[in-house]
Amino acid sequence: MDTVSERITSLQNPRVKQLVKLRDRGARDAAGLFLIEGYREVKRALAAGVKPVEFYCGPEWYLGENEPALVAEARQAGAQVFELSKAVFAKASYRDRPDGLLAVAPQWKRALADLAPRTPPFLLVVEAIEKPGNLGTILRSADAAGVNAVIVCDPVTDIFNPNVVRSSTGVLFSMPVVVAPSAEVRAWLRAHGVRTVATTPAAKMLYTQADLRGPLALVMGSEQYGLSEFWLKGCDELVRIAMAGQADSLNVAMAAMIVLFEAVRQRSLKL
Amino acid sequence: MDTVSERITSLQNPRVKQLVKLRDRGARDAAGLFLIEGYREVKRALAAGVKPVEFYCGPEWYLGENEPALVAEARQAGAQVFELSKAVFAKASYRDRPDGLLAVAPQWKRALADLAPRTPPFLLVVEAIEKPGNLGTILRSADAAGVNAVIVCDPVTDIFNPNVVRSSTGVLFSMPVVVAPSAEVRAWLRAHGVRTVATTPAAKMLYTQADLRGPLALVMGSEQYGLSEFWLKGCDELVRIAMAGQADSLNVAMAAMIVLFEAVRQRSLKL
Repeated sequence: MDTVSERITSLQNPRVKQLVKLRDRGARDAAGLFLIEGYREVKRALAAGVKPVEFYCGPEWYLGENEPALVAEARQAGAQVFELSKAVFAKASYRDRPDGLLAVAPQWKRALADLAPRTPPFLLVVEAIEKPGNLGTILRSADAAGVNAVIVCDPVTDIFNPNVVRSSTGVLFSMPVVVAPSAEVRAWLRAHGVRTVATTPAAKMLYTQADLRGPLALVMGSEQYGLSEFWLKGCDELVRIAMAGQADSLNVAMAAMIVLFEAVRQRSLKL
Repeated sequence: MDTVSERITSLQNPRVKQLVKLRDRGARDAAGLFLIEGYREVKRALAAGVKPVEFYCGPEWYLGENEPALVAEARQAGAQVFELSKAVFAKASYRDRPDGLLAVAPQWKRALADLAPRTPPFLLVVEAIEKPGNLGTILRSADAAGVNAVIVCDPVTDIFNPNVVRSSTGVLFSMPVVVAPSAEVRAWLRAHGVRTVATTPAAKMLYTQADLRGPLALVMGSEQYGLSEFWLKGCDELVRIAMAGQADSLNVAMAAMIVLFEAVRQRSLKL
């Protein structure tokens, strides 16, 4: 295979150490890179136009027949390819069950000014989300609901966390995601005439009673603290989800999905 | 502490080996027991009337101050209490970050005949769910939506899997859950005049267009194969969720939540 630049069999290889470091935000931000692991994730990244700079394969971990084609595709996209021995790949992998495919790609940054929402805009704003799994699930829901873009305010987890990549099932690569401070986001939404509807247990109005048509940004708070005063006081409408059962039966990702799909329902109604 | 029957410091202790075995379904079913790990889970189990037979504590793992009170509560409920050294508790625990609390409780079995649904009944039927995390999340959603009972047909994962216990955040203890074969369930639903509405991508009707009021059982299929022919042909109505984005952006737990909350919306409307 002349697609391979180098074979790595030492656990002490500096490239392997760097792969392990990229699991941490500090190293990711310093390098401006992030990890994409797994067949499905890598395939979707390439399909979305992501250009990995490095590609690590561990053929002894392959689960199927299509892996070499994907490696070739990554190489064509410009990646330098490294082949790892079984033990070395196991060290590089952050998965319980590696499938022998791990890419390193440059991070990107989208600004509010880059957004070109459809008319009327349908946006999701999330504030200070802590758990990468929740952020990934929120991206999936937003994708399924046909949201134009997700705006992440003051994030606690960065969007390039390996568990965001994984739990978003690749939506991170196709969905426009903007990271920006809350104040800037609210100013942008107002300047663009987008109505803001925030979900909070303290609201009086049910989410099903609010008008979720027209230019809309749904706003969701963090897992532990909910929305900040900034958003609670600065949104056009506050709504709540009527809940039976335990107080914590809905997490932020589930709540986002419920309100998103009510908006989809209302927006599809004939006027 | 005279609440402790025995202190265990050996990793080879047969009780510890049995705890590890109880992670596997075969051992769980053979013993008729299951594991409840973690402060929140144990607390909710006790609150719901679950009576652990054994209780294992690892004080060196405690995160707070309230653990001894919970141990005392478990003992009052009839549990034999064992104190484990740090290393032994780490072996017994199935969590990444143990908090020093692990109970063993008898499994229970509810039959369809035990169900006393409210009028009109609002039920959720799930078929052949494979992933414990999905089943747990489905239980949470059902709880939040105020479903009377969840009926699990032909399960691939058993409801006492540690990850069902965990991902249900204790709803397993409070929500009536019946496990039964599909044919028996459908006959029971028909005998009780309960309308069945199944979600499948093959349906023509949108879930928002169906009437989800009155005596209702929502029916959801497995992650990988969807609903079986038995249910697809044997339901009163088939509905689908309109989806933008990637084909797999919604998993079965997310789809269940969306349809459950549309039913909640419709059922709360004034007629």
